[in-house]
Amino acid sequence: MNLRMISYLLGWVLNVQSLCMLLPVAVGIFYQEPQWQAFGIVAFCSLLLGVLLTLKKPKRTAFYTKEGFVTVAMSWLMLSLCGAVPFVLTKEIPNYIDAVFEMASGYTTTGASILTNVEALSQCSLFWRSFSHWIGGMGVLVFLLMIVPLTGGNMMQLMKAESPGPSVEKLVPRVRQTAVILYSIYFALTLLEILMLLAGGMPWFDSITTAFGTAGTGGFAIKNASIGYYHSYYLQGVVTAFMLLFGVNFSVYYFLLSRKYRQAFGSEELRWYFGIVAVAIICIARNIHAGFYPDSWFDAFHNAAFSVSTVISTTGFAISDFSQWPQASKFILFLLMFIGASAGSTGGGMKVSRLILLIKSSLREITAIVHPRGVHLVKLDKKRVSDDVIKGTTSYFTLLILIYALSVLLVSFDNFDMTTSMTSVAATLNNIGPGLAAGIGPKGNYASFSVLSKLVLIFDMLAGRLELFPMLVLFSPKTWKGSLGAIKRRISWNRKSMYQEKNP
Amino acid sequence: MNLRMISYLLGWVLNVQSLCMLLPVAVGIFYQEPQWQAFGIVAFCSLLLGVLLTLKKPKRTAFYTKEGFVTVAMSWLMLSLCGAVPFVLTKEIPNYIDAVFEMASGYTTTGASILTNVEALSQCSLFWRSFSHWIGGMGVLVFLLMIVPLTGGNMMQLMKAESPGPSVEKLVPRVRQTAVILYSIYFALTLLEILMLLAGGMPWFDSITTAFGTAGTGGFAIKNASIGYYHSYYLQGVVTAFMLLFGVNFSVYYFLLSRKYRQAFGSEELRWYFGIVAVAIICIARNIHAGFYPDSWFDAFHNAAFSVSTVISTTGFAISDFSQWPQASKFILFLLMFIGASAGSTGGGMKVSRLILLIKSSLREITAIVHPRGVHLVKLDKKRVSDDVIKGTTSYFTLLILIYALSVLLVSFDNFDMTTSMTSVAATLNNIGPGLAAGIGPKGNYASFSVLSKLVLIFDMLAGRLELFPMLVLFSPKTWKGSLGAIKRRISWNRKSMYQEKNP
Repeated sequence: MNLRMISYLLGWVLNVQSLCMLLPVAVGIFYQEPQWQAFGIVAFCSLLLGVLLTLKKPKRTAFYTKEGFVTVAMSWLMLSLCGAVPFVLTKEIPNYIDAVFEMASGYTTTGASILTNVEALSQCSLFWRSFSHWIGGMGVLVFLLMIVPLTGGNMMQLMKAESPGPSVEKLVPRVRQTAVILYSIYFALTLLEILMLLAGGMPWFDSITTAFGTAGTGGFAIKNASIGYYHSYYLQGVVTAFMLLFGVNFSVYYFLLSRKYRQAFGSEELRWYFGIVAVAIICIARNIHAGFYPDSWFDAFHNAAFSVSTVISTTGFAISDFSQWPQASKFILFLLMFIGASAGSTGGGMKVSRLILLIKSSLREITAIVHPRGVHLVKLDKKRVSDDVIKGTTSYFTLLILIYALSVLLVSFDNFDMTTSMTSVAATLNNIGPGLAAGIGPKGNYASFSVLSKLVLIFDMLAGRLELFPMLVLFSPKTWKGSLGAIKRRISWNRKSMYQEKNP
Repeated sequence: MNLRMISYLLGWVLNVQSLCMLLPVAVGIFYQEPQWQAFGIVAFCSLLLGVLLTLKKPKRTAFYTKEGFVTVAMSWLMLSLCGAVPFVLTKEIPNYIDAVFEMASGYTTTGASILTNVEALSQCSLFWRSFSHWIGGMGVLVFLLMIVPLTGGNMMQLMKAESPGPSVEKLVPRVRQTAVILYSIYFALTLLEILMLLAGGMPWFDSITTAFGTAGTGGFAIKNASIGYYHSYYLQGVVTAFMLLFGVNFSVYYFLLSRKYRQAFGSEELRWYFGIVAVAIICIARNIHAGFYPDSWFDAFHNAAFSVSTVISTTGFAISDFSQWPQASKFILFLLMFIGASAGSTGGGMKVSRLILLIKSSLREITAIVHPRGVHLVKLDKKRVSDDVIKGTTSYFTLLILIYALSVLLVSFDNFDMTTSMTSVAATLNNIGPGLAAGIGPKGNYASFSVLSKLVLIFDMLAGRLELFPMLVLFSPKTWKGSLGAIKRRISWNRKSMYQEKNP
C-alpha cells in the first residue's frame, strides 16, 4: 500500500475543497450573512492540511487498483467529514452525525436530507449544499476516467468497456482529452439550464442552485416544496428535461458534437433508457389519473414525467408527493431506483446497461437449454460482450442486493414500517434521495432515524456512488494486511526464482 | 422436441395421480362423506387418459434437457389443473382458478391458501390437500435425481454437483439405488413424525396430515389456527424439529446411516443452515420478548424457533401471527424466505448452499482487488468450486430477483400495501405459504387477490419449486420453434459433412 501517495492525493483533494469553499464564503459576504466565517475557517484549515500533505511529491509513484479504490473511498469520506463542519459551526445542523449525513448526501449526489425546514438555512449554506452536488458530479466523472481504468479485468468490466483502454500510462493524453470534453459538456449543460431557468423567471440564486442539483443528479432543493415551489409548467418542464439529459451517457453528447449521429442514436443503452422512461411515464400517468388528477390528463402526465425523470436519473427533486401514489406507481418508482441512469453519466443506481446485460444473459441461459449445441452470444450495440463482462455484471448485481438486504436488516431495527425501511435504503444506496413512504418521501426527511441507521445510510450513499467496491475495499481488513503480505510474497518469489535459476 | 415421449411420460404422471387419488376416496368412504365421489370420478378420468397415453411406448427415446424441463413443468402444471377438479365438483372451492391456486400450492409444497375457513372442508378434501404436499415433496426428489443431471453444464451447476454424475445412461443403477435410499429416508422420517405426534395425543387424522405437510415442507394445516390449534409445547416442538430436519440435505442422513459421521457433520451447508437458524432465533426472540411475551423468555424462544423453522424450511405452518411482530423480526423472516432450506431437501427457496457461494464469491471479488496477482479459489466443503458453478449460482440469483421484481410489479396493481405485495410474492416464489402482512399472514389468506395476481402467484409457485428454469423453458417461444430449427440444422450439418468428405 503506497500510503505516501494516497495522503499526497488526499492533500490535493483538500486543496480543491478549500478552493471550492471560497464560493459559499463569497455568497455569504454578498448576502451579508455572518455564517460565511464558518466556511472561511474550514476552508483555511482544510488548505493548511492540504498544503502540508502536498508539499513533497512522493518518490514511489507505483499505484494500483487497490490504492486507487482506497484513495477514492477516503476522498469522499474525508470530503463529507470536512464539508459538514461549517454546518456545525453555524449551528444550522448542530449534530455532527446529521451534518455528515447531509454532506455525504451532497457529495454523493443523493439529496437525502435530515433537515425539516430547508428554508431556515442561510443562503451560503444553501449554496454549499447544492454546490456539493455539482462537485460530486464532477468527482464521479474523474472517478470514471482515472480510477476505473486501473481495474485489471476482474470486475467493473462494464465501465472499463467504456473507458478508453486497459492501461493508464499509455493513455494519459487520451484521458486528459476526454476529461476536457466531458467537463465542457458538464459545464455547458449546466450553463444552458441556468439560462433556461432564468428565462422562465426563476431568480438568479434559485436558478444556479437548481442547476447544480440537476447537473450532479443530486436533488437538494432550496425550498421545502422542492421544485413544486415554482408553480410553472415551463420551469418544472425544464428541470424534467435536464434531469433526463444528465442521466444520459455523456459519450452520446460527444458523438453528437462530433456529428457522429449514427453512433449517438444507435446506442442501445440510450434507446432502453428512453424506452423505460416512456413506458414508466405512461403506466404511472394512467395509474394516478383517476385518484390524483381526475380533471387533467396533462397534469397526470406532467407529474408522472417529473417523478420518473427524478427517480431514474437518481436526482430526487419533487413537484408532488409520490409517496402517496397508488402502490403500482410506487413500485415502478422503486424498480427505477435500482435501474438508475445510464453508465458514463453523473447518475447513480445500477445503470441501464447493466440491466440490459442482466436481462440478455438471463435469456441466454434459457436459450442454452433449448439449443444446447448452439453458440449463444450476448451482444450490446451489435458487439459481442465477453463472458468476463457478464460475470462482472452479475457479481455486481449480487453484491448490490446483498448490501441492500443487510442494510435494510440493520435499518429495520428502528421499527419503521417495511416501506420506510426498504425504500430509505433503496433511495440512499442508489443515490436518489427521497423514499417512497410518507415519512421519508418528498415531504419528509431522514431526521427520525437512529444514529446506527444514519451511519448505515451514509455508508450506502458512499458505496452506491462509488460502484460498491471502493468502500468495501476500504473497510476490508485484507486491504490493510496487504503491505505485510506483499513483502512476504516478494521474498518467497525471489527465493523461488533463485531456486529455478540454480535448477533449470 | 420429442412430443411423443413427453406425452408418454405425462401419461404415467396421470396414472400415478389417479392411484394417489384413491386414498382420499378411501378417506371419504371411511368418514361416510359424499365428496369421495368427486375424487373417484377424477381418478377414473385421469386413469383413462393416462392409460391411453401410455398404451404404446414411443420408439424414439432420445431425450434431452429441454424435453426434461418441459416434461417436469407440464407435469406440475397438469397435476395442479387435474387435482383441482374435485374441489370444484364438491363445490368446496367453486371457483376453478382458486382451486388451481390451492392445488398448485399443494403440489409445489407452498401452503398458501385461498380458503377463509379450512375447517369447513370435508375430511377427504383436507386429506387430499395435505397429501398433495407429500406427493410434491417426493416429486421434487425425483426431479433432483432424474431431470437435473440431464443439464449439460451451463446452469444448475450446484445441483449437478450433488447429483451422482454427468450422464444419465451410465448412472441408472446408481440413480435407482440413490432413489431407494432417499425415499426410505423420506418415508421413515414421515412415519417417525406421525408416531411422535400420536405419542403427544394428537388424533390419527391430524398426525398424518400434519406429517405430510411437514415432510413436503408444505404447510397446509387442517385447522384455521394451523399448529397453534394444538396447545402443547411438545406437539409444537415436534413439528419445529421435523420442519428443520426436512430442510436438511438428505445426503446428510445417508451419511449418518452409513456411519460416515465426519462427512455428515462436516457439511458446510449443514453448519451454515443451523448457524443461520440459531442466529435468527436469538435475534427474533430478543426482538419480540418485550412486546409479545413479556412474561416468558421461554415463550419468546419457542415462538421464534417455530417461526424461523417454518420459514427457512419453507413449510409455512404457524403457531403465532408473525405478521404482527416488530419490523426487524419480520425482515429477518423475509430474508429467510429467500435463503430457504438446504439443497437436496424437500424445501424451497434459493438454498443455503447458493447463499454460501454468493457470499464467498462476493468476498473473492474484493480480495481480487486487494491482491490482484493471487489465485483466489472459492471452496465449499474444502473442495474447490469451479467458476462455472459460481457463474450458474449468480445467474440463478439474478433470474430469481428479476422474476421476483416483475411479479411484485404485476401484483402491485391490486393496490395492496407494499408489504403485502412484496411478501406475497416472496412467500409463493420461495414456496413458504403465509406472507408477512396481516391480510396474507398466518391468520389471513390469498382470497382477496385479483385473478391476474393469482395467476402470477401460481406461476411463481411452480417456477420456484422447479428451480426457475423448467417453467421459463416451457413458456419460451424458442422451445416450440425448436423442432423446426433442429431439422434445418441437421440438414445443413449433413451438407457440411458431405462437403468435407468430398474436399478433405
